[in-house]
Amino acid sequence: MQATLMYGAHDVRVETVPDAQMVESADALVRVTRACICGSDLWPYNSMPKSDVGNRMGHEFIGVIDEVGSAVSGLKSGDVVVAPFLWSDNSCDFCREGLHTSCRHGGRYGFDGVDGGQGEAVRVPEAQGTLVKLPVGEDSALMPSLLTLTDVFCTGHHCAIKAGIGPGATVTVIGDGAVGLSAVLAAKRLGAEQIVLMGRHADRTELGQQFGATEVVAERGEEGVQRVRELIGDDGTRAVLECVGTKPALETAFGVVRDGGVVSRVGVPQYEEGPIGLDTLMRNITLTGGAAPARAYIEELIPDVVDGVIEPGKVFDKAFDLDHVPDAYRAMADRKVLKALVQL
Amino acid sequence: MQATLMYGAHDVRVETVPDAQMVESADALVRVTRACICGSDLWPYNSMPKSDVGNRMGHEFIGVIDEVGSAVSGLKSGDVVVAPFLWSDNSCDFCREGLHTSCRHGGRYGFDGVDGGQGEAVRVPEAQGTLVKLPVGEDSALMPSLLTLTDVFCTGHHCAIKAGIGPGATVTVIGDGAVGLSAVLAAKRLGAEQIVLMGRHADRTELGQQFGATEVVAERGEEGVQRVRELIGDDGTRAVLECVGTKPALETAFGVVRDGGVVSRVGVPQYEEGPIGLDTLMRNITLTGGAAPARAYIEELIPDVVDGVIEPGKVFDKAFDLDHVPDAYRAMADRKVLKALVQL
Repeated sequence: MQATLMYGAHDVRVETVPDAQMVESADALVRVTRACICGSDLWPYNSMPKSDVGNRMGHEFIGVIDEVGSAVSGLKSGDVVVAPFLWSDNSCDFCREGLHTSCRHGGRYGFDGVDGGQGEAVRVPEAQGTLVKLPVGEDSALMPSLLTLTDVFCTGHHCAIKAGIGPGATVTVIGDGAVGLSAVLAAKRLGAEQIVLMGRHADRTELGQQFGATEVVAERGEEGVQRVRELIGDDGTRAVLECVGTKPALETAFGVVRDGGVVSRVGVPQYEEGPIGLDTLMRNITLTGGAAPARAYIEELIPDVVDGVIEPGKVFDKAFDLDHVPDAYRAMADRKVLKALVQL
Repeated sequence: MQATLMYGAHDVRVETVPDAQMVESADALVRVTRACICGSDLWPYNSMPKSDVGNRMGHEFIGVIDEVGSAVSGLKSGDVVVAPFLWSDNSCDFCREGLHTSCRHGGRYGFDGVDGGQGEAVRVPEAQGTLVKLPVGEDSALMPSLLTLTDVFCTGHHCAIKAGIGPGATVTVIGDGAVGLSAVLAAKRLGAEQIVLMGRHADRTELGQQFGATEVVAERGEEGVQRVRELIGDDGTRAVLECVGTKPALETAFGVVRDGGVVSRVGVPQYEEGPIGLDTLMRNITLTGGAAPARAYIEELIPDVVDGVIEPGKVFDKAFDLDHVPDAYRAMADRKVLKALVQL
């Protein structure tokens, strides 16, 4: 079958790999119908050391089940399913608490003999716990929005949930990438009233406004912090959703958060240490967030997608076929595409 | 009057200063009857650059009101009062939210013409909002425990509250100083069932066990982390109370916290940056805590002290008169005394 591998920075190839095949009785084989490229894929795309064997890529996909193992119940061949970006048993103590990212029997696509999502098929371990059956056909027009439930929208949702966003909330969202825009939509869905979006790409912040941003701040750094504080007419916002992952973004987050407030972050940290010294202590700032347990949220979010209450799939602004995945990476890295959908 | 000044590292003097006197109509003059030395006073004691004018010291005291300004109601001359370690109006939006440490009209003792607590008298600004009348006489045997409500016990309590400690909780407390021991007592009071105290001073951890610690871990660093994980038979504890303030203590906190758990910190950070990179994100660790809004807790805690439910004053293991405050600093810095009470 064909699948995507990364051999180093700016070196993505679609190649023939061994067909996905069943290994464990808890596995399912999924023929991928939609996949996408994650903002987090861009970090290795820009920095991965050269490799001779390459890494299998992709962790966001929807597909049709080809085969299920003997230990899998509730799923069958032909089911259209969505896969969260980590596989998990959905039954261990961590999963029962909604922390599927720490599942005792979970893992990552593309590692340890498990296929990546940017390919024709994937062996999904712990399939019964991992896969969620969709109430629509494989060619539904809802596919882009349903595909965001694998990762990006759930990540924005997790960011908002961990920040305690609820009706009437005032929030600053840092970052106009697909995660930041998803966080705007998630905050809006949870009832936030004032949503300040910090981002400087007009086409993206425009989508952010469609998603619910009430103000846009294009300035960055200290200037951006001052602008947010002017807009809020306050001491910063009680909740800040940090959706970038760089240290300057985190510094901005601490800069715009109100005393006693929460900085929730979901961007993959491009830092080992962050500014959590005396000032954050004196101001009683809480830092929370983390890798989103997408599996914990998918079932809750599907109805709003199916009913058209939210349309998170608008973050996809261009579709590519599998052969053109290298172009998709390049387009996203060059910021010509916000988020690339891969249609198989 | 006599008051304590610090002129540099290891240079504390009790000297004659101008008598405390009324300035604003919201002030009260308080004759100090008990004060104490804070663990946070030891940071400048060990590191303060030499000063020609000196800094007035002390922010924890109980006393008797001598005079109140015309804007103060509910308090009168002769009232025995406890002062939280910051003064605050108890009426601004931050105070109404229980975040008195961010009061819009609050401040610190020993700064900007306000007396320090380690002296014979203090002008207390915003007296009506700040001072809490005690239901006992000035020589009550309860004074040591009531004195802890100015700071140290409220700080331990705040740490436990921010960590969400409740009935049945399992918690690790890092630090066997007076704050750490207070955190143990606070966690116990809030219903924690298993309390692992990390500390290596046997006399202090023994008091920790009296306060409710179920296990003591003397090892530090990676060895300490492993020992806690052995004891808990788990993946770390859901709540960690970091009561030291050093970077190694913070690293230990992240080492012993369970995925999805909370590190609550109240020690004054002796670092500008901390380890909040990829690992803490992937594990969904929350970092919270901060300067304790003691004023928010005092009224709630007084009954348990008066009824003898808790005896936080046990952290005081030696009393000094005002003249001997320099000896008290030295004894605490040399770890010969856990926490020094100053009796006037």
